[in-house]
Amino acid sequence: MTQTPDTNLQIRLAARPKGLPQESDFQFVEEPIPQPGEGQVLVKNLYLSLDPAMRGWMNDRKSYVPPIGIGEVMRGLTVGEVVESRLPGFAPGDLVSGIFGWQRYAVARAKDLSRIPPGIPPTVALGPLGMTGLTAYFGLLEVGQLKANETVLVSGAAGAVGSIVGQIAKIKGCRAVGIAGTDDKCRWLTEDLGFDAIINYKTAKDLHEEIRRTCPKGIDVYFDNVGGEILDTALRSLTFHARVVICGAISTYNATEPPKGPANYLALLVQRARMEGFLVMDFHARYPEAQAELGRWLAEGKLHYREDVVEGLENAPKALLRLFDGSNAGKLMVRI
Amino acid sequence: MTQTPDTNLQIRLAARPKGLPQESDFQFVEEPIPQPGEGQVLVKNLYLSLDPAMRGWMNDRKSYVPPIGIGEVMRGLTVGEVVESRLPGFAPGDLVSGIFGWQRYAVARAKDLSRIPPGIPPTVALGPLGMTGLTAYFGLLEVGQLKANETVLVSGAAGAVGSIVGQIAKIKGCRAVGIAGTDDKCRWLTEDLGFDAIINYKTAKDLHEEIRRTCPKGIDVYFDNVGGEILDTALRSLTFHARVVICGAISTYNATEPPKGPANYLALLVQRARMEGFLVMDFHARYPEAQAELGRWLAEGKLHYREDVVEGLENAPKALLRLFDGSNAGKLMVRI
Repeated sequence: MTQTPDTNLQIRLAARPKGLPQESDFQFVEEPIPQPGEGQVLVKNLYLSLDPAMRGWMNDRKSYVPPIGIGEVMRGLTVGEVVESRLPGFAPGDLVSGIFGWQRYAVARAKDLSRIPPGIPPTVALGPLGMTGLTAYFGLLEVGQLKANETVLVSGAAGAVGSIVGQIAKIKGCRAVGIAGTDDKCRWLTEDLGFDAIINYKTAKDLHEEIRRTCPKGIDVYFDNVGGEILDTALRSLTFHARVVICGAISTYNATEPPKGPANYLALLVQRARMEGFLVMDFHARYPEAQAELGRWLAEGKLHYREDVVEGLENAPKALLRLFDGSNAGKLMVRI
Repeated sequence: MTQTPDTNLQIRLAARPKGLPQESDFQFVEEPIPQPGEGQVLVKNLYLSLDPAMRGWMNDRKSYVPPIGIGEVMRGLTVGEVVESRLPGFAPGDLVSGIFGWQRYAVARAKDLSRIPPGIPPTVALGPLGMTGLTAYFGLLEVGQLKANETVLVSGAAGAVGSIVGQIAKIKGCRAVGIAGTDDKCRWLTEDLGFDAIINYKTAKDLHEEIRRTCPKGIDVYFDNVGGEILDTALRSLTFHARVVICGAISTYNATEPPKGPANYLALLVQRARMEGFLVMDFHARYPEAQAELGRWLAEGKLHYREDVVEGLENAPKALLRLFDGSNAGKLMVRI
């Protein structure tokens, strides 16, 4: 029997942030625990994934999903446990994941639920076998169309997605070069994860020269998590028919001025290259094959990951900021 | 017998332009007519194609071709007539095209020569059945992956390439919307060429609103010849899985400040869209199939074009500027 507290703590969006989110942009609310209706389950959230994209959802701006409304529960991917079921096929104790939000409890229907196979720890289901691993996998292999012996450059390389991108590149027989922001991260990526080279963009005197030095044959696939100057500089080193994979642009999410675009985009013409954006959910139908392959690599010890788990749902707002100052070490999540 | 003047007038690059090219950036030289060696022909140039890309070749900057060197003959595509042949298979009177430069005569080897089939006028071989027609064809159909019932937006719509892009879109059963810079051009495109709508970007109060009005279902393929603000604005109206075809960026070629990049490039992520550059010569092996189809459309009266022919090689430098002030009406070329 799972012990359930009396109330459903929710964190709602109180105001749209200007720049970095403030405590006052969030509102803490205690609600009665919801009752599942016919065809629904009650999920007790165990872990909440914190992701850079959340910052975008807080803006009042049309995107691939609607903005979070003022007064609505913050959107977020979680792993939880079914504690009450009125849905055939699901029973108390089942581990599931879904967009269940920044709250202790949620009710969900079949279409909102993904079952976590037995033997997968909840945090791994949010990390290398979940959204972040799948994003790296499909972004690099499908959108990036990686081929053997190519050079991959990935920004945000120490992030949950970036660190897996580089490791998949190595598994596929490619040169993996990363861009990160601290010497600690750089060491972890080269010494523990097998990246061929890492550039610390905060201490590099000339990023373009550093890219030339570490990618002497040019960049075949640039996997971009950060946007801004780093994207613009990477464009200068593309190879013929290179692919630029737009996964995110964390450097711009808290900008209060309109961001500058990549002035060097004409490299796409000179090199007959392609820049393409994607969202992992477009590959939903193919998750099982990817999870099978990612799972095999994990089991074989070819894929490493770090988790950065913050205790307590009430600490989620502050923890979110660590994505933007680069102080998280690995996949950031909250234990609820 | 073709009458040959005594000397070979050449126009060479004298200095690298800053901004718009000046007369002083060119040098006129009279040279002896060159003698073809074994395996070569002597070509008398008849028409010189003037193209926006020439401006880029005048910069001292690595691109898809080396810069034109100071003192070198200006690079340019021409149609000419073989006047002397030491190359089996070519005889005086044969019409050929190639990168024979801004000069009256050139010697060329087999690999530099394209034969113009009988019955094709020389100017058509530079226009709809030549580089410009082929650029429109492969850019729209191959890079743009156009499908029936889609909406195509093309900038530089009254240009040699843009006007054919819109007509091919119509032939393929699509909605064709153009962006041009004078009311005369707009009328020609809708009344004579069958574009569904045209936006005059110089008089439009709000380009974004005009794009929304003329492309109510959004832009499936944006064929960009101009870059700058127009590209950036078009990105805001992409559909899901849209394709942005980067053919050129004429608005930036004479810029003396570094151009701004497309700040709205994250539309590629939101819409899972693609931006891709290309050069027509990459499709060299497939020119015959495209020329056959373009030729059939011409014969059937489905494809219209305008030529803007300037008399006299000595007028080429001044004529080139007309590409950048938008005063050319149709495919610009020089009769030598």
